[in-house]
Amino acid sequence: MVKNAFYAQSGGVTAVINASACAVIETARKHPDKIGKVYAGANGILGALYENLIDTSLESKASIAALQHTPGGAFGSCRYKLKDIESHRDEYERLIEVFKAHNIGYFFYNGGGDSSDTAYKVSQLSEKMGYPLSCIGIPKTVDNDLPFTDNCPGFGSVAKYVAVSVKEASLDIESMCESSTKVFIMEVMGRHAGWIAAAGGLASAAEGEGPPHVIIFPETPFVKAAFLEAVQNAVDKDGYCVIVVSEGARYEDGTFLADAGTLDAFGHTQLGGVATTLAQFVKNELGHKYHYAVADYLQRSARHIASSVDLEQAYAVGKAAVEYAIAGRNAVMPIIVRDQTKSYSWHIDQVDLSRVANVEKKMPADFISADGFGITQKARDYLSPLIKGEAYPPYESGLPCYVRLKNTQIPKKLPPFVAR
Amino acid sequence: MVKNAFYAQSGGVTAVINASACAVIETARKHPDKIGKVYAGANGILGALYENLIDTSLESKASIAALQHTPGGAFGSCRYKLKDIESHRDEYERLIEVFKAHNIGYFFYNGGGDSSDTAYKVSQLSEKMGYPLSCIGIPKTVDNDLPFTDNCPGFGSVAKYVAVSVKEASLDIESMCESSTKVFIMEVMGRHAGWIAAAGGLASAAEGEGPPHVIIFPETPFVKAAFLEAVQNAVDKDGYCVIVVSEGARYEDGTFLADAGTLDAFGHTQLGGVATTLAQFVKNELGHKYHYAVADYLQRSARHIASSVDLEQAYAVGKAAVEYAIAGRNAVMPIIVRDQTKSYSWHIDQVDLSRVANVEKKMPADFISADGFGITQKARDYLSPLIKGEAYPPYESGLPCYVRLKNTQIPKKLPPFVAR
Repeated sequence: MVKNAFYAQSGGVTAVINASACAVIETARKHPDKIGKVYAGANGILGALYENLIDTSLESKASIAALQHTPGGAFGSCRYKLKDIESHRDEYERLIEVFKAHNIGYFFYNGGGDSSDTAYKVSQLSEKMGYPLSCIGIPKTVDNDLPFTDNCPGFGSVAKYVAVSVKEASLDIESMCESSTKVFIMEVMGRHAGWIAAAGGLASAAEGEGPPHVIIFPETPFVKAAFLEAVQNAVDKDGYCVIVVSEGARYEDGTFLADAGTLDAFGHTQLGGVATTLAQFVKNELGHKYHYAVADYLQRSARHIASSVDLEQAYAVGKAAVEYAIAGRNAVMPIIVRDQTKSYSWHIDQVDLSRVANVEKKMPADFISADGFGITQKARDYLSPLIKGEAYPPYESGLPCYVRLKNTQIPKKLPPFVAR
Repeated sequence: MVKNAFYAQSGGVTAVINASACAVIETARKHPDKIGKVYAGANGILGALYENLIDTSLESKASIAALQHTPGGAFGSCRYKLKDIESHRDEYERLIEVFKAHNIGYFFYNGGGDSSDTAYKVSQLSEKMGYPLSCIGIPKTVDNDLPFTDNCPGFGSVAKYVAVSVKEASLDIESMCESSTKVFIMEVMGRHAGWIAAAGGLASAAEGEGPPHVIIFPETPFVKAAFLEAVQNAVDKDGYCVIVVSEGARYEDGTFLADAGTLDAFGHTQLGGVATTLAQFVKNELGHKYHYAVADYLQRSARHIASSVDLEQAYAVGKAAVEYAIAGRNAVMPIIVRDQTKSYSWHIDQVDLSRVANVEKKMPADFISADGFGITQKARDYLSPLIKGEAYPPYESGLPCYVRLKNTQIPKKLPPFVAR
């Protein structure tokens, strides 16, 4: 029986999340006997709640293919977590009503931990409500904090961006340090896990060698005196110090170095300004001239320097998701399994969504060097293959050609959704 | 008669200043009948003052060629401006003593306005002191603020970086704006001139179209009410607002929006934090969630996304400098002359250093749109050719291969320099 599919992007977008979208649509189009149309949620799961469904069948083959080299979320993403199923069952039921109204039998949810949780709950409820639905999670997060999968699509590209940028900026400050700036700080993403900051360590040749000289992970409680000592040691040795700091860096008592004091839609503290906090320490306590960069959205949207491995994996999980759905699987997520590190190889396997939901993968303790400010050889071995290959987008007149889809929505069939 | 050459890099480095160095060395090597060795100043002009001369003849052909794809300043640069010639004649005389001691007959100074001034003064003094010296300026500055030359080597690559980054981050926030961030701010360099900020405008398709929706130039006095209105208009129209702001943005009374209150070695105010200033306005007055990026060193060291046109021009001015010197010219600087804009073509000409020194080129008023927040078609026509072509560096294991020279210094012949 032919059923339509629903695909949605969730949470912070990445340089390659559209490659997963591309894979879902291209793979679905190969199986017209199983999958009718692929509807994409306008702005993620909100598109399902409010019945804003984009008809991807109206997009040309070339446009869908171009998603592979287009960053951002082509259909819009959202920071919206479904509320607790016990108290807000209406939201979950609404999803299933919308799916039912549009003959949707496949639900592909492309996101991080929160999205796995949602996909799992929808799967459970659909069973209870007697509406057969194949719910498949598709992993995506620059934070690399999903369990079971060796790494998350989206991470490899941000890791490459950070490693390349740190390498380049290090050459800059090295040139300037004799008579000017002595300390360069680069602030990167990573709320709870230091994966992205760790990637900055790839810019150095080997463990214990800078630059970068100091990496500050959320996993290691920040001790100001030790930090200042490490910075001064680098300046004494090399003439300058390059610091990579995770936005999630925190003191021993758990306080963030840069707590802006506001909350995002998921109730997480909204961070910002750890680079300036460190810069003030450096200036006030050591008297060095500093520069700082805040990579912010640039790091996760930098499709121009995306990793080929990351791109391939983002495509592979999207393709596998559709194949699992067609094979009748439910409440699972494709994961990346590393076969070999030295001559890097990997394959796709699956894990039950029930096991993924709301589990956060931290960096192993033995990825961080003894002094707390660097990465170990083990971390290098893990990270290095993920940034391999340059998946350049096409260019025109000096700028990358990124596709803009038509994003035509289909007519609504249901009354508007009113949240309780 | 064969004389040695001295080459030094000055001021902030760029993604392509080493391409000029490469051209100087490669071209000099082709003329052993005129130029003996090329000595590079360790850390710029300080290398001449303190007789720290790097023997570039010890570098292999391959290493010198690799300078073309290596960012930063391969011999070290400096923020050191020679003092006033009347009161500190000793510094200038010292330079000439060092040149004399090492049989240096050619002085190539690769920098911005301050460097042209120095090269010009050294040229004048060498005449007075009866020591024949060919002094050639080689233009370089990401700020694009040198007069006479159509554009400055280094600018095209930072322009490309900013345009590409704004385009990518715009796709990111567009994906997120429905339920999360509404305003993205990108802070770029440009102390007195808005050339770099203007390049962000290339990310949009045409004048009056966002993103970016708001560009803030140092040339246009900042009026908070007008800024907030423009931001809100963009949010109302597109659902989000992308802002590109120059670090040199200032109020009508000349105060910088982000005056850190410290001075650099040239006596310029050291800037930082304009993005956070704007972010607070957006949050406090409009209540929108924001993100901001500070590109800082990343923008000017991003060799991975350098412009081919910029690279070719950086090489061309270095080559021309040596050719001028060999032809017996003195106190001149090669400049880039634009022949055609539509089908872009250019050639190298020269200008007298006496005319360049300490003249700052501002952006023409008709490059900024009537509302003060965008670029005109005229600006687009000027900027667009400069970012053309992707001059990718080679990669290994996912990271660009940047060369590190041996930088062996020759024995000193003079007593140490002691500044008065």
